[in-house]
Amino acid sequence: MNANDKFLASNAHVDAASVQPLPHSRKSYVVGSRPDIRVPMREISQADTPLHGSGTTGKPVHSEANPSIFVYDCSGPYTDPTTRIDIRNGLAPLRSAWISERGDCEELSRPTSAYGCERSSDPQLTELRFNLQRQPRRAKQGVNVTQMHYARRGLITPEMEFVAIRENQKREGLSELMLRQHPGESFGASIPRVITPEFVRAEIACGRAILPANINHPESEPMIIGRNFLVKINANIGNSALGSSIQEEVEKMTWSIRWGGDTVMDLSTGKNIHETREWIVRNSPVPIGTVPIYQALEKVHGKAEELTWEIFRDTLIEQAEQGVDYFTIHAGVLLRYIPMTAKRLTGIVSRGGAILAKWCLAHHQENFLYTHFEDICEIMKAYDIAFSLGDGLRPGSIHDANDEAQLGELATLGELTQIAWKHDVQVMIEGPGHVPMHLIKENMDLQLKLCGEAPFYTLGPLTTDIAPGYDHITSAIGAAMIGWYGTAMLCYVTPKEHLGLPDKDDVKDGIIAYKIAAHAADLAKGHPGAQIRDNALSKARFEFRWDDQFNLGLDPDKAREFHDETLPQEGAKLSHFCSMCGPHFCSMKITQDVRDFAAAQGVSETEALKKGMAVKAVEFIQQGSEVYSKR
Amino acid sequence: MNANDKFLASNAHVDAASVQPLPHSRKSYVVGSRPDIRVPMREISQADTPLHGSGTTGKPVHSEANPSIFVYDCSGPYTDPTTRIDIRNGLAPLRSAWISERGDCEELSRPTSAYGCERSSDPQLTELRFNLQRQPRRAKQGVNVTQMHYARRGLITPEMEFVAIRENQKREGLSELMLRQHPGESFGASIPRVITPEFVRAEIACGRAILPANINHPESEPMIIGRNFLVKINANIGNSALGSSIQEEVEKMTWSIRWGGDTVMDLSTGKNIHETREWIVRNSPVPIGTVPIYQALEKVHGKAEELTWEIFRDTLIEQAEQGVDYFTIHAGVLLRYIPMTAKRLTGIVSRGGAILAKWCLAHHQENFLYTHFEDICEIMKAYDIAFSLGDGLRPGSIHDANDEAQLGELATLGELTQIAWKHDVQVMIEGPGHVPMHLIKENMDLQLKLCGEAPFYTLGPLTTDIAPGYDHITSAIGAAMIGWYGTAMLCYVTPKEHLGLPDKDDVKDGIIAYKIAAHAADLAKGHPGAQIRDNALSKARFEFRWDDQFNLGLDPDKAREFHDETLPQEGAKLSHFCSMCGPHFCSMKITQDVRDFAAAQGVSETEALKKGMAVKAVEFIQQGSEVYSKR
Repeated sequence: MNANDKFLASNAHVDAASVQPLPHSRKSYVVGSRPDIRVPMREISQADTPLHGSGTTGKPVHSEANPSIFVYDCSGPYTDPTTRIDIRNGLAPLRSAWISERGDCEELSRPTSAYGCERSSDPQLTELRFNLQRQPRRAKQGVNVTQMHYARRGLITPEMEFVAIRENQKREGLSELMLRQHPGESFGASIPRVITPEFVRAEIACGRAILPANINHPESEPMIIGRNFLVKINANIGNSALGSSIQEEVEKMTWSIRWGGDTVMDLSTGKNIHETREWIVRNSPVPIGTVPIYQALEKVHGKAEELTWEIFRDTLIEQAEQGVDYFTIHAGVLLRYIPMTAKRLTGIVSRGGAILAKWCLAHHQENFLYTHFEDICEIMKAYDIAFSLGDGLRPGSIHDANDEAQLGELATLGELTQIAWKHDVQVMIEGPGHVPMHLIKENMDLQLKLCGEAPFYTLGPLTTDIAPGYDHITSAIGAAMIGWYGTAMLCYVTPKEHLGLPDKDDVKDGIIAYKIAAHAADLAKGHPGAQIRDNALSKARFEFRWDDQFNLGLDPDKAREFHDETLPQEGAKLSHFCSMCGPHFCSMKITQDVRDFAAAQGVSETEALKKGMAVKAVEFIQQGSEVYSKR
Repeated sequence: MNANDKFLASNAHVDAASVQPLPHSRKSYVVGSRPDIRVPMREISQADTPLHGSGTTGKPVHSEANPSIFVYDCSGPYTDPTTRIDIRNGLAPLRSAWISERGDCEELSRPTSAYGCERSSDPQLTELRFNLQRQPRRAKQGVNVTQMHYARRGLITPEMEFVAIRENQKREGLSELMLRQHPGESFGASIPRVITPEFVRAEIACGRAILPANINHPESEPMIIGRNFLVKINANIGNSALGSSIQEEVEKMTWSIRWGGDTVMDLSTGKNIHETREWIVRNSPVPIGTVPIYQALEKVHGKAEELTWEIFRDTLIEQAEQGVDYFTIHAGVLLRYIPMTAKRLTGIVSRGGAILAKWCLAHHQENFLYTHFEDICEIMKAYDIAFSLGDGLRPGSIHDANDEAQLGELATLGELTQIAWKHDVQVMIEGPGHVPMHLIKENMDLQLKLCGEAPFYTLGPLTTDIAPGYDHITSAIGAAMIGWYGTAMLCYVTPKEHLGLPDKDDVKDGIIAYKIAAHAADLAKGHPGAQIRDNALSKARFEFRWDDQFNLGLDPDKAREFHDETLPQEGAKLSHFCSMCGPHFCSMKITQDVRDFAAAQGVSETEALKKGMAVKAVEFIQQGSEVYSKR
């Protein structure tokens, strides 16, 4: 039985687990230069630190307040209890006014793609269909509506201001200790201490960053992808011929953004691709990417050799008018590179790459995405869709890493980048794959050089092939490293990679592994403010504020669950010990005793330890051993 | 209720899950220069590749055999069905003859530590006690029995020959494709293509590698730790005051080695530490490490200031005579470094470091492990126990990474290394901790410089603090990198780190994450033969040999389970598609079609694609589209 058979639009709903705020978190908005620029952040509140002012009573005599920590928030209105969520209506179109005000697009009376029209008028699909009340938009004839085009004309759009606010780490109320951070090693990236709207504009204008924002996806909260900004992550979802319903895919999207997915790619290849996508886009506060060749292939019943430019073009317009924000286009799979893959251990492992290789071989013609690349640019700029130039020849094994096929294609993607930029169309470049650690930097450096510093968007890379079932880990290693070296967005890999379709648990595992990789990269690059969350969590840990430690972490639920397995009592979360060492011994507690001791002497801790130690040692034994064994 | 209350020696048994061979694997032994040098390897057999000799019938006309792949095997006799396992008897003492033949030690009539005697004669412990039938050994008066001492005298011991055989990757029967490997980047390590016994001896003699092999642990299968050998991993186990029984700890040990733990540290701090350790050592084929100060602290009821050299010395001898192979000794926590930790965000987080800091402060005396360091060397060389010089001042947060306290201690560990080497005692150096990616290499480089290239043994490092519940991942990133840069052994971190005691699942998750890190490091260093397993697995994956893909992976059970969630039928494991793309489309299948097509033309694949494409394209459409849509 196909799960979609059970799906009825009238009953569509969002899973309760996706609409609860995270623990001790509230949605906070920073308002920009106009009242409708409201940038969401997640504010995590903390408990006070009990301070022991005296060694004699053991009771806290006063306490130190710990300020709220603000973190970047991808979860959209779902985690805002003041917003009523009904996925049958979709999210509020927060960018509509901005798009309209620019006065450079028109409303269409109906979708202009043949397939879009067909699906929207098929009565058999009524029960499946999202009931959209507005018409698609398109640029007026001959006009360019891309953020890059605006940027190059010197315009700072509300979208640009939005991301500028979003990228800055709030520092209000933070102590010097919380703000302390290691200077990073940025490999030529130059991240300003404060991100200004003008900086955002300049980065988009020169192509070093993209702001994916289709005019038909006004529900999206603007975000930016570039190596001078926070490293982003993408989560792949999508049904296949073997299963999963529209309801499940929408849930995977809301689940992905809850845990930190910055964009979501819908890679559906099963039934009702068009309708599934509509539901996802209408309910997504993050940019949505697709690989249009997948759907085009479905339209020719899986026969790659029957693909035509016309079918593909219609698919691009169909998806453009639904609001897809970026398209993976495998225009670099050239005829001359295909023979190079025959020497490989694992040939062509990209689905898009394999489809186009098959088409090229069958017709003995150059890849039609390459020959029609400027036609595609014309479509992209009429809706502001960004290119994600696909690496159809990425290596599928350590053996095939950095070979001539892969690097040949990369050079072609660089040429195509220049063509897209000529049209003011935004571009990012997709990258590998499977790469051993020592070859990762070469990938990054070549990409920057060959592709004019267009943002790199990599899948992993996986640093070994030998761990099916754990490829979120084999690839998080490579992802963290390439993110440090300059990759702008990391495409997640779930534990099910190579083995099966990810379920919700796998999606979460993939997201968390990649949030770790992205954040580790931000720290290593020295992204301003990145270390605040680490500092806050470590301070909470050191002070045995268990709840704060959980809440500041990437996954408060899991941390709490693990803790409770050993020490389930609520009281244990206030305990000055943890289950690893038991109540009678704890290294953190000893350190605290050392500090308490110094504080009790009325001198600075450092001084207390440096001078007069012999005398104080006697007091310490008298007091300290008491304190230590009883508290 | 304490779980140990249920433990009776007479009922001790090993969990059935730990004694099954891994799927399609058999234990294979390579015999050395004498019949009692039998080096275990795990031989993984593979299915044949069906070859399609003709495009017309679709049936395979002949097949290609895939040779067995041999992998390094830590699991000991447990996975050898020809060995009878009874943990009440312990493992066979395979090194006994080698130790006796050297004629440099004596059998003691009873344990020489006061505590060891007390425990062995306490009638209340009879039911808990392992019933060892032999007496402890000790070097004859004034004699040195360390592998380093032998190595410096030019002796190649059977232990050294054993590890030389063990470190070489078997290449018999492997095709050129399987042997192909990226040259690595080794940062000054120099790994020969074939490891000889003489190379092993030379590396031990100069201190660049250690072979931990207490003469009282004759059950251990020799292994080596050094940066010119395969990167090793350690698993920590051990009970705490809050729970876990002897039976559980022995099971964690057998479970750890099943998944690839190269050494195991018993960090018990709970009840019956002495007896628990005896059971673990007697049943362990891998070296066992401990932190003796933990047990010493238990003997003074958790009061660090009451520790004395005499109690500590007795503990060292107690454990030495049980067969512990390496001791963590925090002799670098000097009085002058302690004040430096007051400025930290997270003070002293090493338990050993905190104990000694507390002792130093209480007595205002220099760390007694430092002042008695040569006395400790005398004990180490009488049993051949290796130093693992503890980093008591390792950073507990990103904030505290690479600070003056940490690096000051590292310099002291370097001085102590020279003293130990003067006594021909083997040494490795423990390292951090929490370190952002860009500071990892500095750690490694400083360690090599300050500690005379003694092997580095690191905990992680964790590359961010913000993911409690996932620190096996935050740290696998750092572990892979530092392993690449030259660390010889990686101490695992489980998902429960900072939160609770690891159970069996956590132990396995930690081990697998660290096997990934260690193997990724071996690949990046270009360790000869390391890529064979990746190549074999990728070939199996590409050829849809699902079972072989599972069996060649680090965790066949998990890979099979994940695959079966989507495609449970046994037939699906022979399918030429997988659940991600469904039966109608698969990129790997397309690549195979491309090759089949080329092969069918009777010319090499590359040639077929290069010339006469236009003509062949027609044939391809006629044949290929048939093949593609029906098979």
